[in-house]
Amino acid sequence: MALIVHKYGGTSVGNVERIKNVARRLAKWHRAGHQLVVVVSAMSGETNRLIALAKEIQASPDPRELDVVASTGEQVTIGLLAMALKELGLKAKSYTGWQVHVLTDSAFTKARIIEIDEKKIRADLAEGTIVVVAGFQGADEFGNVTTLGRGGSDTSAVALAAALKADECLIYTDVDGVYTTDPRIVPEARRLSTITFEEMLEMASLGSKVLQIRSVEFAGKYKVKLRVLSSLTDADMPLEEEARSGTLITYEEDKLMEKAVISGIAFTRDEAKITLTRVPDRPGIAYQILGAIADANIDVDMIVQNISVDGMTDFSFTVQRSEYAKAMEVLNTKVKDHIGAERIIGDPKICKVSVVGIGMRSHVGIASQMFRALAEEGINIQMITTSEIKISVVIDDKYLELAVRVLHKAFGLDQAPA
Amino acid sequence: MALIVHKYGGTSVGNVERIKNVARRLAKWHRAGHQLVVVVSAMSGETNRLIALAKEIQASPDPRELDVVASTGEQVTIGLLAMALKELGLKAKSYTGWQVHVLTDSAFTKARIIEIDEKKIRADLAEGTIVVVAGFQGADEFGNVTTLGRGGSDTSAVALAAALKADECLIYTDVDGVYTTDPRIVPEARRLSTITFEEMLEMASLGSKVLQIRSVEFAGKYKVKLRVLSSLTDADMPLEEEARSGTLITYEEDKLMEKAVISGIAFTRDEAKITLTRVPDRPGIAYQILGAIADANIDVDMIVQNISVDGMTDFSFTVQRSEYAKAMEVLNTKVKDHIGAERIIGDPKICKVSVVGIGMRSHVGIASQMFRALAEEGINIQMITTSEIKISVVIDDKYLELAVRVLHKAFGLDQAPA
Repeated sequence: MALIVHKYGGTSVGNVERIKNVARRLAKWHRAGHQLVVVVSAMSGETNRLIALAKEIQASPDPRELDVVASTGEQVTIGLLAMALKELGLKAKSYTGWQVHVLTDSAFTKARIIEIDEKKIRADLAEGTIVVVAGFQGADEFGNVTTLGRGGSDTSAVALAAALKADECLIYTDVDGVYTTDPRIVPEARRLSTITFEEMLEMASLGSKVLQIRSVEFAGKYKVKLRVLSSLTDADMPLEEEARSGTLITYEEDKLMEKAVISGIAFTRDEAKITLTRVPDRPGIAYQILGAIADANIDVDMIVQNISVDGMTDFSFTVQRSEYAKAMEVLNTKVKDHIGAERIIGDPKICKVSVVGIGMRSHVGIASQMFRALAEEGINIQMITTSEIKISVVIDDKYLELAVRVLHKAFGLDQAPA
Repeated sequence: MALIVHKYGGTSVGNVERIKNVARRLAKWHRAGHQLVVVVSAMSGETNRLIALAKEIQASPDPRELDVVASTGEQVTIGLLAMALKELGLKAKSYTGWQVHVLTDSAFTKARIIEIDEKKIRADLAEGTIVVVAGFQGADEFGNVTTLGRGGSDTSAVALAAALKADECLIYTDVDGVYTTDPRIVPEARRLSTITFEEMLEMASLGSKVLQIRSVEFAGKYKVKLRVLSSLTDADMPLEEEARSGTLITYEEDKLMEKAVISGIAFTRDEAKITLTRVPDRPGIAYQILGAIADANIDVDMIVQNISVDGMTDFSFTVQRSEYAKAMEVLNTKVKDHIGAERIIGDPKICKVSVVGIGMRSHVGIASQMFRALAEEGINIQMITTSEIKISVVIDDKYLELAVRVLHKAFGLDQAPA
């Protein structure tokens, strides 16, 4: 008998039929003797509907009140799923975030979980009750309703798994796992049966939107055994098979079944690159540039500064394409003359492609292998950054698909590992 | 400066425009220096949508989980209204039932309010904040979400007014007050500017569905000054005019402006009459009949038993027409032979018409005046019951409109009081 947390996203509970399917799947796990906690999102479309209502009233809705409104979506789902479980003759009980209670800070619309009081849940589990918890939400120390931000239900599930010291946390979603890259671009992309926590973190933050990045960080902190798997399979498939499906996020590198150096090719569209040329290379200059950008609430992704020549350097960074115009305006009006930069050159038509792999640590030549593969296709590299387990390049966005395909093949990702 | 509770029903907050109108109306009251607590229902149609969803999953939804689902409708409205108030530059804060906190018993879907902790609200009011509270809902001592049943938002408003010792409780609705009878039947029906609590109770329970009966009982218990008025008037109408509009429910008979003996003609369609003939007149016989009916969960309205002749009596009562068939079956299978009744005669095509008036206490001849008016139109009276302030008769339902019109005229209700 194990204590297992299941999590089902909005698509998986998108209508009454799907909620009934989730109940059947849970019944199967319950029959096998497991203790079950289920975290659910709002029915698909519901959160957007509620936020749209709020925006009809306030262009920028009051954050506290927006959370009051937005959190109702999950509350509906927990009640419906508990009913569906009871309809199957099982014991079930729903909890909102404040009932559990999921204590968060007071940062409305993007609150962080501080702690979870798992006493009620443990008592229910001991009685054989399936506990259904609303994802995405909690309450602060004053009893205000809070939400965790988009994708927050993943974080709720991982936090509950950590608080309960669950044996495994299963994230059911509309893809069947983590792939070597996006199969829409590379049809030969393979599902990874395992991926390390560090790789997952890079894959998630680089745009493989399978799991919310915060939930992965949370899982890593508490070493929660996390599995991403499909909710679209037959609810009655054999449990043993289902339990091995999807992709397991692991914390033990040496136990990896797959010994590939590179695990996947990640990418981000919709970035924009900005370069300040011939900036005086003196202390504080990076802060003067990026401080102004941060003050305008613009997130910076990559930052590259090369060595200086004649006391002058070129300073480049990337931002979300949607914030490109705002960033350019800040630089031109508040930064350029102030720091004495020669020119500000922007390019909103770029993308970022990365190779990610824990094996990189113990292998040399990955970077040159990557650059050669791109060069052979005539793809010019505009910026490069590296971390211990990834290499990212900025290229013209028209080469995105080509670059991803070329790298996927160059690192042998289309073949099953030996 | 007064502390005033406003309540707006589902139609009054049925869409974004109407919510904005409610905010404008509240702003007007706030400008006049009043402290305001606002109780709101779910946007019209929302509660039905949620209950329908639940019924797609369970034909008889689990009551605890149904309350979890159904209570979200009001939660959406409070957030939206608080936003609309903030958009007008006012301080506003929303509270769900459990946040206030509205403590109820654990009778899910029909919970009763035990007490309200008004500390948070008082603190907010002292700061000039408009407090927006979700109607219809509360939480029990274990932190479970509860709802008060259909129309429960009226009760929430009255309970809050009582807890806060509010100066007045304004129930804004889609009618502009309590009428002498239904204007759809008698075009000359007049709005009453005041009505006594006892009369309102009779009018409400007899089918004038302006206010939920429980909210009227609650108001009476705590002597809450209650006013029913229209939410469909111009939000910018002069406050003095609005404050005098609608119908005030009063507890001081002698201060009544209107000295009419009869305040209104109430009626109920859809009743059914059942008579057991020649029942042995012995102790316990009424219980043997009505106990079986109660065991079948059927509500009984009027009960009439006449004096016995030869130790035998006729026993009649009325039930909701929708429960007529069930009641007849119970009587025929479980009661008739057991008590030795001669026959069971049923008639599902009856209605009940009542004249209601506090002045009846000090006036004689009201009953004969009523019976004569009906007789002159050839309307046969089948059953009669009386209370201190009302006389009800059961008649053939085809005469309903005629009887109401005749009585309305006979008691001079179509003329303004002297």
